Amino acid sequence: MLINSMYPKSFASDNHAGVHPAILEAIAAANHGDAPAYGDDSWTAAFDDKIKEVFGAEAEGFAVLNGAGANMVGLALMLGRYDAIICPDSAHIATHEAGAAERLLGVKLMTVQTEHGKLRPGDIEARLGGVGNPHESQPTVVSISQATELGTCYSPDEIAALAEAAHAAGLRLHVDGARLANAAAFFGCDLKTITTDAGVDVFSFGGTKNGALAAEAVVVLDSSLTGAVPFLRRQSLQLASKMRFISAQLSALLTDDLWRRNATHANQMATRLADGIVDLPSLSLTQPVESNAVFAALPPAVAETLRRRYQFHYWDESAGIVRWMTAFDTTPGHVDDFLDDIRKAATM
Amino acid sequence: MLINSMYPKSFASDNHAGVHPAILEAIAAANHGDAPAYGDDSWTAAFDDKIKEVFGAEAEGFAVLNGAGANMVGLALMLGRYDAIICPDSAHIATHEAGAAERLLGVKLMTVQTEHGKLRPGDIEARLGGVGNPHESQPTVVSISQATELGTCYSPDEIAALAEAAHAAGLRLHVDGARLANAAAFFGCDLKTITTDAGVDVFSFGGTKNGALAAEAVVVLDSSLTGAVPFLRRQSLQLASKMRFISAQLSALLTDDLWRRNATHANQMATRLADGIVDLPSLSLTQPVESNAVFAALPPAVAETLRRRYQFHYWDESAGIVRWMTAFDTTPGHVDDFLDDIRKAATM
Amino acid sequence: MLINSMYPKSFASDNHAGVHPAILEAIAAANHGDAPAYGDDSWTAAFDDKIKEVFGAEAEGFAVLNGAGANMVGLALMLGRYDAIICPDSAHIATHEAGAAERLLGVKLMTVQTEHGKLRPGDIEARLGGVGNPHESQPTVVSISQATELGTCYSPDEIAALAEAAHAAGLRLHVDGARLANAAAFFGCDLKTITTDAGVDVFSFGGTKNGALAAEAVVVLDSSLTGAVPFLRRQSLQLASKMRFISAQLSALLTDDLWRRNATHANQMATRLADGIVDLPSLSLTQPVESNAVFAALPPAVAETLRRRYQFHYWDESAGIVRWMTAFDTTPGHVDDFLDDIRKAATM
Amino acid sequence: MLINSMYPKSFASDNHAGVHPAILEAIAAANHGDAPAYGDDSWTAAFDDKIKEVFGAEAEGFAVLNGAGANMVGLALMLGRYDAIICPDSAHIATHEAGAAERLLGVKLMTVQTEHGKLRPGDIEARLGGVGNPHESQPTVVSISQATELGTCYSPDEIAALAEAAHAAGLRLHVDGARLANAAAFFGCDLKTITTDAGVDVFSFGGTKNGALAAEAVVVLDSSLTGAVPFLRRQSLQLASKMRFISAQLSALLTDDLWRRNATHANQMATRLADGIVDLPSLSLTQPVESNAVFAALPPAVAETLRRRYQFHYWDESAGIVRWMTAFDTTPGHVDDFLDDIRKAATM
Repeated sequence: MLINSMYPKSFASDNHAGVHPAILEAIAAANHGDAPAYGDDSWTAAFDDKIKEVFGAEAEGFAVLNGAGANMVGLALMLGRYDAIICPDSAHIATHEAGAAERLLGVKLMTVQTEHGKLRPGDIEARLGGVGNPHESQPTVVSISQATELGTCYSPDEIAALAEAAHAAGLRLHVDGARLANAAAFFGCDLKTITTDAGVDVFSFGGTKNGALAAEAVVVLDSSLTGAVPFLRRQSLQLASKMRFISAQLSALLTDDLWRRNATHANQMATRLADGIVDLPSLSLTQPVESNAVFAALPPAVAETLRRRYQFHYWDESAGIVRWMTAFDTTPGHVDDFLDDIRKAATM
Repeated sequence: MLINSMYPKSFASDNHAGVHPAILEAIAAANHGDAPAYGDDSWTAAFDDKIKEVFGAEAEGFAVLNGAGANMVGLALMLGRYDAIICPDSAHIATHEAGAAERLLGVKLMTVQTEHGKLRPGDIEARLGGVGNPHESQPTVVSISQATELGTCYSPDEIAALAEAAHAAGLRLHVDGARLANAAAFFGCDLKTITTDAGVDVFSFGGTKNGALAAEAVVVLDSSLTGAVPFLRRQSLQLASKMRFISAQLSALLTDDLWRRNATHANQMATRLADGIVDLPSLSLTQPVESNAVFAALPPAVAETLRRRYQFHYWDESAGIVRWMTAFDTTPGHVDDFLDDIRKAATM
Repeated sequence: MLINSMYPKSFASDNHAGVHPAILEAIAAANHGDAPAYGDDSWTAAFDDKIKEVFGAEAEGFAVLNGAGANMVGLALMLGRYDAIICPDSAHIATHEAGAAERLLGVKLMTVQTEHGKLRPGDIEARLGGVGNPHESQPTVVSISQATELGTCYSPDEIAALAEAAHAAGLRLHVDGARLANAAAFFGCDLKTITTDAGVDVFSFGGTKNGALAAEAVVVLDSSLTGAVPFLRRQSLQLASKMRFISAQLSALLTDDLWRRNATHANQMATRLADGIVDLPSLSLTQPVESNAVFAALPPAVAETLRRRYQFHYWDESAGIVRWMTAFDTTPGHVDDFLDDIRKAATM
Repeated sequence: MLINSMYPKSFASDNHAGVHPAILEAIAAANHGDAPAYGDDSWTAAFDDKIKEVFGAEAEGFAVLNGAGANMVGLALMLGRYDAIICPDSAHIATHEAGAAERLLGVKLMTVQTEHGKLRPGDIEARLGGVGNPHESQPTVVSISQATELGTCYSPDEIAALAEAAHAAGLRLHVDGARLANAAAFFGCDLKTITTDAGVDVFSFGGTKNGALAAEAVVVLDSSLTGAVPFLRRQSLQLASKMRFISAQLSALLTDDLWRRNATHANQMATRLADGIVDLPSLSLTQPVESNAVFAALPPAVAETLRRRYQFHYWDESAGIVRWMTAFDTTPGHVDDFLDDIRKAATM
């Protein structure tokens, strides 16, 4: 059951969707009497178990409040005072977190121009020229997003190759998994396959864009790093006092594969949307559709006509490229109505 | 109607309580279809109106995720690169935010020993000796907590005197209002009386300890500072993507004086508890009971006996001082049962 | 009189040169009895006057200890908490200051690919897309190097155009003037012409690479910024206690145009070197020679032969590009000997 | 031979003195031809050897530009992201470095009230209550000054006891040795005795206050920390490009015990000054005189009379306490003249 029957549906962001009913029910169910604050509660213990169940016994999960918070806590674990992160220039940490990486972590971002938002092993090697030179920031972390900000996904093999390249150079691999569920759904694989099994060191597992109210997890696979998380989470303003309500959201997502059902559905809606425009000569997809995002180039007049009725963002206005996002609560009807209007606008 | 009928009630923290039913209902009511992310939604617009209604037309409110976040965003607004904050040495920002002030703000905390956790105007003047000296951090903000970490409250006149002393020296006044509601309830005054009307520049208004799930507000009364808040909130990891659910919580608290009903009740439970022990010769109150906290000195054996059954924290274990907190959902029955057990333990 | 008669001369860096005799004499002359510390001395007062004499009455100069220090103090003056600097990707602050900009200033560097290391007004405008968006760092400063790290210089008109573009967008213009003297010498103009008169807001004036022992100046042309310098200089570890010896070096450089004589000579030696290789078909200049640097592409075997006898750095080893620097104490004989060896190696 | 024959001598600071002739000669002697920049030169190699000769084979020395810089580089080596330093509340890092510790290191200073500026082992233990609590900054470094800011000295046994207490709790011991030479001179011991042999982990060795122009050293005795110094020194703006001139100063101080001769002389002058006032009933020493500082309480009228002719600072104006400093170039005649004037003013 999906809750969103409103028309027209927003295609602006998976953050425009509300909370999945099962998650809201989990919150309500947790509202029973007292519970110790800051994570010493049974809901958080259950979340800890779920993380190990899903990501492996070596995984330690820490619930936080939002995606940027998950990134900053996860990255802080691995960074010293004169470090650099190698990441695509489209990385959320580089473009849309208001400079938190530079301000809160003091880190240099070595941004790499990529195809479809995906870093390649050779990009790591090419950035190692300054290693050992005291005049230069020292790369210690490679950070990628899964799915990427361009809606593409790294296959398990691609992740493993990046992990190998990073580790060979003494760097660690971080994954911004705000849409990790969408990537696993795309490949039809377990979450563990594209994280633990692929050699990732620290990653985030996003809940909010996949039906939660506000809940993300930092997952740490390197046991030498876990001791620092409670301190960094507290200092980074990411510790919820009534933690049970955050843990309950994440546990709900990890129960009965809700994360997969939500993500698979959202992905399917994006594919339905993309499939519906391929025959329109004035529109073209600019990125492979591998998650819940569709990037399309279209004539300005078409875009403007659609924006009068629908919410969505330009990705690159001067190039006429827009981004359409679907969510767990996007229905086939929403997509088909949108397609009807796209078709009308494109053929006027 | 209060939801907590569990026994024994925790007296450890108002964060051990759950969510007030009216707030949970407000969250559920906001879960209806799409809403723009990051605050461009109607629930946030309603919250903005509530803030102005309660704190005055000059007040601008910004919803954030937790109390430390509210403090860091509010303080960052007023601080340059070589600044100091004058605050009591018991201030939450100095003792329990994992060094966020130093790390995230880069600020020096000029901590002051106080009586009952309350700063006095003379404490400000005494810290101005280094003003203009380039070898010393420059005090630019005075920060107090209302209610204090010791459960005491600043009267409207005391706040006004501090604001006057701060402003006379060119400093601004910040209030950590994690329990602002308890202070207003104690004085039986409006929230505006102890903030806007008293000359405060920036303060936080806490929701979480007073029945919310996770919601605090930064309120800014100096219009020259408001423009920076959206950037600082984003960078400080305090921006909720599905903001409507945070705004809805705060609006619920500010509707029909729910904030006051909850805080008044919690305060009354603390008074009931304190009143119940005054005749016990082996126990003594170490702080005036002016909000929802009771600080008591008691023999170690009594404390240990009680801790076998009840949750609460030592404030100063070597001095035998404990802190008992009440919450919106503490019932007279909870208190009376606790008093029975205290009495038994104290007279064994 | 130049002190360096050693053979072979280093062409690796103008920092390999020693101290000009007139500057060493100025240091010795300042070593007379007591002087107040931290700048309250007569040598610093004289330096202050020299700065106004050379850069205009509105200029305020502050002596610091090294070039990175001058950049960090100067930039810190103009930056808030969520700011970005637009600069060439070859900028020293981006490449060779060990991440000080990110760590000490917390700033994002918006680096721009350029031709010959020179930013153009259009590069500024192209980076303003995120202005006002709370998810993005806000550009507030444009920083260029004069001469650039590639040995090229901005003309007075080019500086003025950048200042105009920056100011039109509400940004300030900073110049890393580690080799400002070389640029003024190249144009045969006053230092004021390429700074104050061209609309620069804050710049550094380098001494060390031009014959000083260790002395740079931060010069501020915006009077609203000067009050913060003493605090930022102290906090940034750039305040000399025995300041008279730093001030004396800078005053010596600014007396009788020593800065110009040194820089003109160094520039001439670079030109002599460049002129000497133009007829060699296997070598080519990769940058215009406008200061004291020569960038040349040459066959690997030639480079390696020369490096057996001479000190110099690869700029881009994979592309076979080297950087040859001259200094105030490079003699025509040094250059001619080097040219002889280049010719021999190139024609073997 | 001492250079300062000016009258009246300043008693305000050892920074008011100039440069010792032997150090100026060492600078001039280093000004011979080219030398590699940033420390790859023979003068720096010689300095490295001197450090090992004086402080032991396990010591690694790194030349920096000033005392605050030496402290920040040395401390940064030992600090993570949520750490605290335990130090006396009179520590230079806490009082006179413009908040560099908080801003550049992001560290909390746990300041301790002390007698005569000296921390005791029990002070460390008393600050460990929050260890392991994620809400609190974690103490990882103990920092003391030798000599202290109050002119007192820690004996070798006192240092060893602090090192033992720190290490027992898993903390490291740092010494701000801006006046380390004065302390060794006071005890008549080697520099190694109060550093390496006493269990110090990282310390600074000050040159500037003891006759150098501008030169301090960070000395690291824990080999796991040395690898980070070059990066932190560069990033902290403490790397001199023409390093040979800094290294040469420090080598000169470490040659033929110049450091000891200078410090012993300065200490003797302070003792001469203190001895000369003990019979004056209206004056009293407020600190033991153990280095080159005399702290005296005297009637305001006496202080004011003296300040008309002599330079010195109030330490605590409201308490009528002044600080008189001597230097390597203070002569017995300077002291005796000052004593004459003190005596006259005190008996008027």
